[in-house]
Amino acid sequence: MATRPPAEIGMPLDEIDTPALLVDLDPLERNLELMATNVEACGLRLRPHAKTHKCAVIARRQMALGAVGVCCQKVSEAEALVHAGVPDIVVSNEVVGRRKLERLAALSKQAQVAVCVDNAANVGDVDAAAAKFGTVVDVFVEVNVGANRCGVAPGEAALSLAKRVDAAGHLRFVGLQAYQGRAQHTRDFDQRCAAIDAACTYARQTVELLQRSGLECEVVAGAGTGTWALEANSGVYNELQAGSYVFMDADYARNKNADGDRFAEFEHSLFVFATVMSMPEPTRAVVDAGLKSMSFDSGMPEVVGSESMRYAGPSDEHGNLDLSQSNTRLRLGDKLRLIPGHCDPTVNLYDWYVCVRGDRVEALWPIVARGAVW
Amino acid sequence: MATRPPAEIGMPLDEIDTPALLVDLDPLERNLELMATNVEACGLRLRPHAKTHKCAVIARRQMALGAVGVCCQKVSEAEALVHAGVPDIVVSNEVVGRRKLERLAALSKQAQVAVCVDNAANVGDVDAAAAKFGTVVDVFVEVNVGANRCGVAPGEAALSLAKRVDAAGHLRFVGLQAYQGRAQHTRDFDQRCAAIDAACTYARQTVELLQRSGLECEVVAGAGTGTWALEANSGVYNELQAGSYVFMDADYARNKNADGDRFAEFEHSLFVFATVMSMPEPTRAVVDAGLKSMSFDSGMPEVVGSESMRYAGPSDEHGNLDLSQSNTRLRLGDKLRLIPGHCDPTVNLYDWYVCVRGDRVEALWPIVARGAVW
Repeated sequence: MATRPPAEIGMPLDEIDTPALLVDLDPLERNLELMATNVEACGLRLRPHAKTHKCAVIARRQMALGAVGVCCQKVSEAEALVHAGVPDIVVSNEVVGRRKLERLAALSKQAQVAVCVDNAANVGDVDAAAAKFGTVVDVFVEVNVGANRCGVAPGEAALSLAKRVDAAGHLRFVGLQAYQGRAQHTRDFDQRCAAIDAACTYARQTVELLQRSGLECEVVAGAGTGTWALEANSGVYNELQAGSYVFMDADYARNKNADGDRFAEFEHSLFVFATVMSMPEPTRAVVDAGLKSMSFDSGMPEVVGSESMRYAGPSDEHGNLDLSQSNTRLRLGDKLRLIPGHCDPTVNLYDWYVCVRGDRVEALWPIVARGAVW
Repeated sequence: MATRPPAEIGMPLDEIDTPALLVDLDPLERNLELMATNVEACGLRLRPHAKTHKCAVIARRQMALGAVGVCCQKVSEAEALVHAGVPDIVVSNEVVGRRKLERLAALSKQAQVAVCVDNAANVGDVDAAAAKFGTVVDVFVEVNVGANRCGVAPGEAALSLAKRVDAAGHLRFVGLQAYQGRAQHTRDFDQRCAAIDAACTYARQTVELLQRSGLECEVVAGAGTGTWALEANSGVYNELQAGSYVFMDADYARNKNADGDRFAEFEHSLFVFATVMSMPEPTRAVVDAGLKSMSFDSGMPEVVGSESMRYAGPSDEHGNLDLSQSNTRLRLGDKLRLIPGHCDPTVNLYDWYVCVRGDRVEALWPIVARGAVW
C-alpha cells in the first residue's frame, strides 16, 4: 500500500513526477548545522522533534550533529523510528490505553524510551505496563505553562504527580515537559517573549518546589522553532525540542523577529513540487496539488520565484493559481515549487522525500512514520 | 512503510486503538444500495467517484450493485485500483506530462481506462503515449459548466477540441465531462438547482453542437452527492459520478434540502475514532486526533452522541473538546466517534478502514490508493 517514489536518483528536476515532496539538501543541511551549533554554544542539549520530519535518516543526521535523541508524539512514530535505527526517543505526549502502553513498555526494551504523564490514574497504567514487560520507563511530568493543551498545573499539582511517578516501582522520574506550543506562532516578538517569560517562571517555580521535596529534575524540556533562543537563555530549560527548523514553512516565516522583520533565521528547505495541469484562462492556471498534497490549516502555500503569483485556493486534487497580478507566463506542464503553509501535516501526506541538490535528485528518503498516528 | 491496522477482526469497539478510521458497515451498505437503486430507477448509469474511498473493496461492491466502473482523479489511484481488481476506470481529470501519460497508456492495456482533456497540445501528448504502447485510449472533453476549475468553455471550444480527439490515431472520443463541483456544497437548495440548470444548459448545447458536426457524445458525465438528482432528471447527463454518498461527511450534512431541512438522504458511515487522552479542566478534554487524523478544510468534526460537546480546535496530534455546554461526563480513556468535516482528504490520511458492525470489528479493508496523488 505504500506508494513508490515519484522520482529516481540522478534525475533532473523537471523529470520528477508531481505532486512530490522535495527536500533541498543544501538549505536542509545548513539548518541542521545552524541549530546544532546554536544549541551547543548555549551549553544545552538538543532533542529535535521528529513529528515534523517523521524520517529516520534526518533523525540520525540530527544525532550525528550532537542531538541526544529525538522526540515524537505517538507510540507508532516511536516504533517506526526505533526500527529504523533511532536509539533514544522521548514521546513528548501522554499515552492512554492498555494496548498503547504495552507497546510503549515493550519498545523500551529495544531503545531508550520516555513518556509524559498528566494524570494520576495514568501513572498507574504506565507502571503496570512496564511491570508486565519487566522494564523501567522514564517519565516526564507535563506541566501546562500557558499552551492550555495537556499538562497539570504548575506547582503543587505537578509535585503531587511527580511523587506518584517517583513512588512507582517501574517508573523513573526524569523531569518536566514544559512546552509552550501556543507561543511558537505568535507573530509579535514581544508577545512571544512575554509568553515564554511566563512559561519559564512556571517551570522554574515548579523545579524549585520539587527540589525542596527532594525530587531533582534532571531534564526540563520544551521550546520550538519560534522561541528556542528564549528558552535557551532562561537558565531553567536544558533540553530543547524544536522541530520545524529543519524545513521552515510559510507560517513560521510570517513570524516577526525583534526588528519587526520576517523571521528568517532558518531557510525554506521543504517544497511541494507541482505541475501546471490546466490553463483555462490567461489570468488563471490550475496546478495538480490540492488538499491531498498539502495542509492548509495555516494558510495558503507560497509560490517560489514569483511573489505576484498567488495560490488562491485548493480543492481535493487541484489548486487555482491567480495570475492576474503576475507578469510570469506559465505554460502547461511547467513545474513550480510551493512552500507549504504548515510543514508537519504536509509531510504526513507523503511516503517519500525527493531530496535534490542543485537541479538533480540525490536521494530518496522514506518517511517511515508517515501515517503513524496511534 | 504502510502502517499495520489499529484493530483486529472480532475485537469489541472499545479495544480498537486510536485514532482509527471507522466504517460502520450497516449504514455504508444502506448508502450503497440506496444510490444504486435511485440511479437504476432513473435509467442511468452510475460510475461512483473512488477518490472518496480509495478502496478496491468498496469499488467492487459498487460495481456488484450495478455501477459500470468508477472514477478517480490521478493515474496512481487508477493503478492501485486496477491492481486490486477494478476493471473499468475513468480518470475524470487532465493528465499532463510524459511519464504520467505513458503510465496511463500502459494501464489501458490492463483495464478499461479513460481520461479527460482540456488542451489541444495535451491531446497530442495523450495520443503519442497511446501510440507508443500500441493502444487506444478513451477520451472525454472536459467542459467548464460553472465550477471554474479545469475544462474548456462550452460550445465552439469544446467542439474544436473534440474534433482533435476524433482525428487522433490512438484516441477514441467518448463524450463530455461536465462536473459542476462548486454547486455540490452550495447550502441553499434553490441556488444548487440554479447552478445545475445552467450546467445542464451548457452541456446540452454542446452535445447538440457536436451532434450537428457528426460527433456523437456516447457519455455525458458529471454530478456529485449534493446534486445527483438534478443531473439525473436533466435528460442530458447519462453517467453520474457521485462519491461522498458512501460516507456522508459533516459538511454535506450542512446542505439544506428543498424543505430547508438538513440534507439527510444518506447516513453518516465514516468516523474518526478518538480517545480522551487528557482531562486538564472540568470543562475541557483533549482527544488524540488532530490535523494528522482529519481534514479541517470544511470545518470542525461533530461529536456523535453529544451535540453539546464541541470539538473546539485541533493542533497536529490533539483536539480540544469544549465541554462547557455539555452534561456528558467524560473520563480518561473514553472513546468517541467524530464525523469528519470532509471525508475525502480525511480518508487519504489512513491506510486501513476498521469496519464495524454493531459493537464488533468485522473487517479490515486496505485503502489501496491512500497517498496516490500523482
